[in-house]
Amino acid sequence: MSLRAPIRLARSPAANLSPTFFTSRALATAAASTTTDGASGTAIVLLNMGGPSTVPEVHSFLSRLFADGDLIPLGPLQKYLGPLIARRRTPKIEKQYSVIGGGSPIRRWSEFQATEACKLLDKLHPSTAPHRPYVAFRYADPLTEDTFLQMKADGIRRAVAFTQYPQYSCSTTGSSLNELWRLSKKLDREGTIEWSVIDRWPTHPGLVNTVAKHVEEKLLEYPEDRREDVVLLFSAHSLPMSVVNRGDPYPAEVAATVHAVMQKLGFKNPYRLVWQSQVGPSPWLGAQTSKTVEEYVKKGQTDLLLIPIAFTSDHIETLHELDLEIIKESGQEGIKRAESLNGDLEFIKALADIAKEHLAGKSRSSKQMKLRCPMCTSARCQAQKEFFATGKHPE
Amino acid sequence: MSLRAPIRLARSPAANLSPTFFTSRALATAAASTTTDGASGTAIVLLNMGGPSTVPEVHSFLSRLFADGDLIPLGPLQKYLGPLIARRRTPKIEKQYSVIGGGSPIRRWSEFQATEACKLLDKLHPSTAPHRPYVAFRYADPLTEDTFLQMKADGIRRAVAFTQYPQYSCSTTGSSLNELWRLSKKLDREGTIEWSVIDRWPTHPGLVNTVAKHVEEKLLEYPEDRREDVVLLFSAHSLPMSVVNRGDPYPAEVAATVHAVMQKLGFKNPYRLVWQSQVGPSPWLGAQTSKTVEEYVKKGQTDLLLIPIAFTSDHIETLHELDLEIIKESGQEGIKRAESLNGDLEFIKALADIAKEHLAGKSRSSKQMKLRCPMCTSARCQAQKEFFATGKHPE
Repeated sequence: MSLRAPIRLARSPAANLSPTFFTSRALATAAASTTTDGASGTAIVLLNMGGPSTVPEVHSFLSRLFADGDLIPLGPLQKYLGPLIARRRTPKIEKQYSVIGGGSPIRRWSEFQATEACKLLDKLHPSTAPHRPYVAFRYADPLTEDTFLQMKADGIRRAVAFTQYPQYSCSTTGSSLNELWRLSKKLDREGTIEWSVIDRWPTHPGLVNTVAKHVEEKLLEYPEDRREDVVLLFSAHSLPMSVVNRGDPYPAEVAATVHAVMQKLGFKNPYRLVWQSQVGPSPWLGAQTSKTVEEYVKKGQTDLLLIPIAFTSDHIETLHELDLEIIKESGQEGIKRAESLNGDLEFIKALADIAKEHLAGKSRSSKQMKLRCPMCTSARCQAQKEFFATGKHPE
Repeated sequence: MSLRAPIRLARSPAANLSPTFFTSRALATAAASTTTDGASGTAIVLLNMGGPSTVPEVHSFLSRLFADGDLIPLGPLQKYLGPLIARRRTPKIEKQYSVIGGGSPIRRWSEFQATEACKLLDKLHPSTAPHRPYVAFRYADPLTEDTFLQMKADGIRRAVAFTQYPQYSCSTTGSSLNELWRLSKKLDREGTIEWSVIDRWPTHPGLVNTVAKHVEEKLLEYPEDRREDVVLLFSAHSLPMSVVNRGDPYPAEVAATVHAVMQKLGFKNPYRLVWQSQVGPSPWLGAQTSKTVEEYVKKGQTDLLLIPIAFTSDHIETLHELDLEIIKESGQEGIKRAESLNGDLEFIKALADIAKEHLAGKSRSSKQMKLRCPMCTSARCQAQKEFFATGKHPE
């Protein structure tokens, strides 16, 4: 059942469903909503990394995360190193989740966003209604595989994979799409479900305007005479330089979001794009958020507004890393954080608009998604792109 | 004399001019064009790194370039290492300039752009006319110091430092502004010349539209059935990771330009932002242009359009590195380069518009320019920012 049904999502063995062979591989838009066997509607599947909703889920979350070579490339030893690192980090991360209230709010927000966006979408684009909300996480419940099985059980024939990372990285959206491709091959080789992909939306006006609004709201908390000199620090999750140098499009797309938000704000404040959450000894893209805050404070610049720019819902990196490790630790009243988008209705309207534009368009994905990174050597990445471009698994 | 006077710019000893003390430090706009002593007009000073106009100038060009710690930070040994590297590289670079026609065209283009933009500006913003065109290069004739002396000799009282790097880096625009600040302290301590700064214009519609036009023009050279699959490779000069990690704004601003151009093009082609001209053994920002081309060719993607996105005039990095080392060497007919902006009249109109908006505005510089990089430790950078923000040298 999609999220609209008031029943808790659970593993549902859908493998015994008899799949209907879908002959036409052209992208169906309006036509997709009513299929011959009576299954109807369009699944809107929100993709994200997810987070543990409770503390006991932390270990399995970390295990999946460190097993993912698309996110954390540990080489041929991944199978051994991954579990080791996951086990070692579990107690520390469990403590962090306890501190922020016993779990990540990302599932709650994602389900809310999906459900509300689908309601709007039914009005905005009735020809593909009803729109059925799903959430597919990469490392936490609801896992992509469970959602996939549920969609099959629900008789879904047309689905939109809608990344909740506004900017595309092979480590994030790419990893989710690789997983969907693997599952489609394993559970739906005959192509019962026809997929298309919303793979990025870094400068969609709905996103940009909502972020700018949250900045403006937080700026009001500064005295008027200091307000226009507050330094805006747009903070995004960093990437290892090996990924950046491979040609990953993420840093440039994050920068595009930042520029669009600043344009909306009329460039009235000074700003920087900074990068957070580096782990391990290898070089990552900087300037680092934490070091930036430290150095500005040393320079006497203590009015700093941190703005999460690459994640749309709150998660451990906002609630713990930014709010506690950086802001609270600094002891500076001038260091604040703009609210995440979470349940903002303007943001949810943006999600519906993005989905509507996609459904009304003729493309299975952006042109950009079809292009592999120049230095990419991943065979699964290539196969995934072919699958989503054509809608077919190769013979 | 400004460039409008048909006399070759030469070193002119202007130190014996009696400077007039300029009392008001508020930014003069309309008022600045007519001053009490009869000196009139507004100097529009195009800043750029420059290039040797003839082969014999290569060595002095390289010597200045490797002496500049803002561009190439060699540490306390700069004074010894700089000349050494310059001497060692001279023969190779001399050969490159010979191959591209015996010198860099950047002076010719800059003088043309300055002169033509000033003519337009006289019509667009008559209250600050006449606008007097100057070119100030960092490493080649006309050197910033010579231009500064010339401006004093010409009786200039109001000047706009107009960077010709659309995206701000401390290594490029920052270095030119540091030089202007030093010269103002040395040659104009009393502030005869009142400066304001156009410090960046990464997404000015005039820039974006002209680049997009040059892309469209070059795309027409591909057969229609291949045209929309040509991969657009926007190529910008790279930066050492030490500069990126210090918080230099350049990578994000280059990405903003690329995104704006793609928006103008309707995202109809796949694309990547890539980085060229890395030197030395330390890590630089990638993906590298040359390696990207190599790898795409290996993947069978041989329709590639290279687009210079951070320099507006042709120079050794387009004419030699892109056209010869990368394109000609590849032997692929599908690899081409979009024209640089050079003498494009739409681009020159954009320069005039940017200057007009600046002169009509109330700010000495962008808000962004006042913010130092988080990890910056340069005292000259701080002093320069104070000077351009206030118009005064500290007591």
